[in-house]
Amino acid sequence: MRLHSAARSSASFRVRIALNLKGLPYEYVPVDLVHGGQFRDPFRGLNPAELVPVLEREGAVLTQSLAIIEYLDETYPQPPLLPHDPLERAYVRAIALAIACEIHPLNNLRVLRYLTRTLGLGEGAKDAWYRHWVEQGLAQVEGQLTAAGRCGRFVLGEAVTVADILIVPQIFNARRFDCRLDHLPTVMRIFDACMQLPAFIDAQPSRQPDMPPG
Amino acid sequence: MRLHSAARSSASFRVRIALNLKGLPYEYVPVDLVHGGQFRDPFRGLNPAELVPVLEREGAVLTQSLAIIEYLDETYPQPPLLPHDPLERAYVRAIALAIACEIHPLNNLRVLRYLTRTLGLGEGAKDAWYRHWVEQGLAQVEGQLTAAGRCGRFVLGEAVTVADILIVPQIFNARRFDCRLDHLPTVMRIFDACMQLPAFIDAQPSRQPDMPPG
Repeated sequence: MRLHSAARSSASFRVRIALNLKGLPYEYVPVDLVHGGQFRDPFRGLNPAELVPVLEREGAVLTQSLAIIEYLDETYPQPPLLPHDPLERAYVRAIALAIACEIHPLNNLRVLRYLTRTLGLGEGAKDAWYRHWVEQGLAQVEGQLTAAGRCGRFVLGEAVTVADILIVPQIFNARRFDCRLDHLPTVMRIFDACMQLPAFIDAQPSRQPDMPPG
Repeated sequence: MRLHSAARSSASFRVRIALNLKGLPYEYVPVDLVHGGQFRDPFRGLNPAELVPVLEREGAVLTQSLAIIEYLDETYPQPPLLPHDPLERAYVRAIALAIACEIHPLNNLRVLRYLTRTLGLGEGAKDAWYRHWVEQGLAQVEGQLTAAGRCGRFVLGEAVTVADILIVPQIFNARRFDCRLDHLPTVMRIFDACMQLPAFIDAQPSRQPDMPPG
């Protein structure tokens, strides 16, 4: 398997965690998002949507991190990344989607560029935008987790699921942009529990071959 | 089952289509997004994320449209909304997520309000933002569909999947905001095929009890 990835891309980070949890070795193919590698061939030929990650496996090309993680879970069932019960599956998917659909897309590189280049926003207004969606979105995740009362060490009891895989990269992003996190005791407790595990530790941006120095 | 929905909410629209395709009757509970019904109890007590749709079933509360659709598909398997093969499942999920994660979140009501109320953008700049993400995002979906060469009458051959369910509400939104669509021949052909089916016709905003007049 080949994973087209960028060190700091949180969607790439999610797939790296899933591959590590499954114990699947892969070839790391860096995509230089800062210098437009996603807009050029050969990458653009693989994914016309110009987004990382892309997973190549036996000639197949898979896109969208959540679709890739579901594929890995269906194809390599152990350890499972989703629970067995349909209601519990819906719950962990909803937490994952609350991050993938409500927080992350608003702070994508291309959105931040639109804010500064097309709308002419300064750095302060851009950072305020970033923090607004992260802080509000994660507060809503915190509210959902505490209302559901299903957390153990992780989002659902004692086993890692796709919901935990989505939380961790989002917290890395939040810290990078100095977002408030003190209103998220449950989320941060889960983050800390995940970051005890080698699958998460090894997937983090600073351990990737294309992490910028410093 | 009770579906908390808003007529024009495209995430609600997706779940209405899925319920209709499965032939599942449900009670329609309107949520008045324009006047803040999502921020008040009883709705907010159901979903602290303050977003429609919410599906209630036998005491369980489900959120996030894609998680709800996967749940319905696991619980009521006929007709299937995902293919059987894992690679094909990954493909239709990726198309669905390309809309759910890359287009729709940028044009959510709360994002448009941030643009006008917090950033002080005028209607013209707000509409340009809206059209930019819809036109670019759907062009990328078009590119993925044509590159994959898997379309028949629908996104994957001759059976409706979750990818088709995501396309239709997004086109309704695009038309409402006068977005360009002439660069999307494949997407629009699929849209037209879907809109021949009663499950899609009956789920459209104008057929809902809370559609504003006019």
